[in-house]
Amino acid sequence: MSKGLPARQDMEKERETLQAWKERVGQELDRVVAFWMEHSHDQEHGGFFTCLGREGRVWMYCRLYRTFERFRHAQLLDAAKAGGEFLLRYARVAPPGKKCAFVLTRDGRPVKVQRTIFSECFYTMAMNELWRATGEVRYQTEAVEMMDQIVHWVQEDASGLGRPQLQGAPAAEPMAVPMMLLNLVEQLGEADEELAGKYAELGDWCARRILQHVQRDGQAVLENVSEGGKELPGCLGRQQNPGHTLEAGWFLLRHCIRKGDPELRAHVIDKFLLLPFHSGWDPDHGGLFYFQDADNFCPTQLEWAMKLWWPHSEAMIAFLMGYSDSGDPVLLRLFYQVAEYTFRQFRDPEYGEWFGYLSREGKVALSIKGGPFKGCFHVPRCLAMCEEMLGALLSRPAPAPSPAPTPACRGAE
Amino acid sequence: MSKGLPARQDMEKERETLQAWKERVGQELDRVVAFWMEHSHDQEHGGFFTCLGREGRVWMYCRLYRTFERFRHAQLLDAAKAGGEFLLRYARVAPPGKKCAFVLTRDGRPVKVQRTIFSECFYTMAMNELWRATGEVRYQTEAVEMMDQIVHWVQEDASGLGRPQLQGAPAAEPMAVPMMLLNLVEQLGEADEELAGKYAELGDWCARRILQHVQRDGQAVLENVSEGGKELPGCLGRQQNPGHTLEAGWFLLRHCIRKGDPELRAHVIDKFLLLPFHSGWDPDHGGLFYFQDADNFCPTQLEWAMKLWWPHSEAMIAFLMGYSDSGDPVLLRLFYQVAEYTFRQFRDPEYGEWFGYLSREGKVALSIKGGPFKGCFHVPRCLAMCEEMLGALLSRPAPAPSPAPTPACRGAE
Repeated sequence: MSKGLPARQDMEKERETLQAWKERVGQELDRVVAFWMEHSHDQEHGGFFTCLGREGRVWMYCRLYRTFERFRHAQLLDAAKAGGEFLLRYARVAPPGKKCAFVLTRDGRPVKVQRTIFSECFYTMAMNELWRATGEVRYQTEAVEMMDQIVHWVQEDASGLGRPQLQGAPAAEPMAVPMMLLNLVEQLGEADEELAGKYAELGDWCARRILQHVQRDGQAVLENVSEGGKELPGCLGRQQNPGHTLEAGWFLLRHCIRKGDPELRAHVIDKFLLLPFHSGWDPDHGGLFYFQDADNFCPTQLEWAMKLWWPHSEAMIAFLMGYSDSGDPVLLRLFYQVAEYTFRQFRDPEYGEWFGYLSREGKVALSIKGGPFKGCFHVPRCLAMCEEMLGALLSRPAPAPSPAPTPACRGAE
Repeated sequence: MSKGLPARQDMEKERETLQAWKERVGQELDRVVAFWMEHSHDQEHGGFFTCLGREGRVWMYCRLYRTFERFRHAQLLDAAKAGGEFLLRYARVAPPGKKCAFVLTRDGRPVKVQRTIFSECFYTMAMNELWRATGEVRYQTEAVEMMDQIVHWVQEDASGLGRPQLQGAPAAEPMAVPMMLLNLVEQLGEADEELAGKYAELGDWCARRILQHVQRDGQAVLENVSEGGKELPGCLGRQQNPGHTLEAGWFLLRHCIRKGDPELRAHVIDKFLLLPFHSGWDPDHGGLFYFQDADNFCPTQLEWAMKLWWPHSEAMIAFLMGYSDSGDPVLLRLFYQVAEYTFRQFRDPEYGEWFGYLSREGKVALSIKGGPFKGCFHVPRCLAMCEEMLGALLSRPAPAPSPAPTPACRGAE
């Protein structure tokens, strides 16, 4: 492909490709939503788990109902409301305490509680979207109260999460924590000046904490660092998770857009998009590894070389957002590369939805469509966001913004 | 191979094969012990974890020192004693409470505590062997006190383990619990009439509880059943672990030998040796699957189709013990089949010890030799026991006992 200013012909071809992907993505979104509507409403046996699935689904259904004309039907909103009421009634393990269960029985009894903030974060997302879709204030009250509890756990006192402090356990910060919190800041602040203002400082704090995970003179993003931002000893410190880094990448890109900070954006593209892609993409079989070791030792996670669906959905979002925002064609080519692999390997043309777990070589390793960590969430979120971004790109008056030669381009060829 | 009474020629060939395997196994045991002696003494960085490793090693070193002429050297016993003293000083998280850490830092601070009985079980094994190897009574006192605590947790009150009782969590009994306890009964009762008597009833209780995991009219051994011995709903209830079943199999075989119960023995061979082998052996690539679903649904564990070292070492012990005890040649052939696969796929001819984690196809998926769950334990235990059993078989006056046509033979061809 040409690298200079695109000729008219090239641009038209580019638009055709974008258009083709927009259609592919949109059709796939319809199939995926149809899958969940058909199979998961009140038939939650044999592999359809409740908690993350339900919270993810509440958020997703509301989002689709609210932002896509073709999903604006009562069935979707009713299902989301039913899910939301279930969560209000049963999610909390010991009300009025705010700790939520990770898995509930069909009739709402807690099966499993994680000693982290993540169930509560998904709860907050669900309640905030439910408020946006229905206008009912009690959902928003729930969301904000839970958010304040989560912030307290993260910044003040984590003892309420129930994890014992052991003398030998290093005070590690998983990148997942500030990442997830930044996502909530974006969620709650969307078109809401009051909350955007309330959480602005928290958003900056999250971004700073995430950026602390860039280590080794910018050559590696590490999943766990000390609270002071230093590399930790041993395999915990060397652990890398390319999909997580790419997901953090697009959370940070949204943050940069909100802040209007192109310098930070270039850094984020370089470290959170290009770096994990170049280190994490399997040169032999394609796809992103699940875990890696920064010193190229063997990771201790048995599933390290498997290809999971969500790193690929997050990479699609990250590269398309990076391209939409910077205009750098390298990022568009990477979007195509990841999207081709993802649609070829993860889609199930027969029954719909995506497979979640492939072997290193790309064969389906687990045939489940739903599980403790896979529900109606990552796949439709990716498809919906990509459809929107592709639509926005196509509706821009041509030509696409001429790419400034940002540092992001260096070394990406 | 002939199935009738063996001719003189066949028997000689059989002895040659047994002899060849005895030599292979013995040489491998030497290499494995040499590996751990060279690499793990006070150099515990980069992949050599402490707690299970150390407890397993203490037990293993003492056992080898005590029962093998060629391992009766001070270096082994000194290393075991140093490990034992470390455990006495640091293993317990909050003395005088008996809960032990699962992982400790090099200088003895707890990193991780499991809310199960297993760290304490390995502690008990280590202390009992240390007493046997050194004659120092304080080790045995430790072992017996810990054993009584474990029995209390299992039979009376599990709250000391720290796992919260959740309303929706089914009261499931993992087979691992009575299995591990039966192993301790065997360990403490070995050549010790007083303790054998003290724990005789407990041994029977454990055997009964393990046998409750045989479900579906004897067609499946399930890893988790209700306390009353019924199948549990969902994927938890359908979960199968062929390696675990085979390991339970040889624990039960020892129990049958002690009790002199050939009827139970036939049942154990049928359900805990042949059944998991026939359902769990991969017909395409060989090797035992890690997890299976009794209804042939897809397991939810990402690593379900991987080939792990320990199910294979346990299968080797189980089949050789089954053959030694019953004389059924089907079991000897299965021992050969498993041992051939195991030596071909898991041995590392270059650096010693075995690889622990292969892909479904048999490629090395993780190159680590030690990890949170792999130390100096399963491999040398298997090799030492197999060497002893092969030696005993070879020293028997020919012919081997004529096999009674037990139900074990049915369907095994």
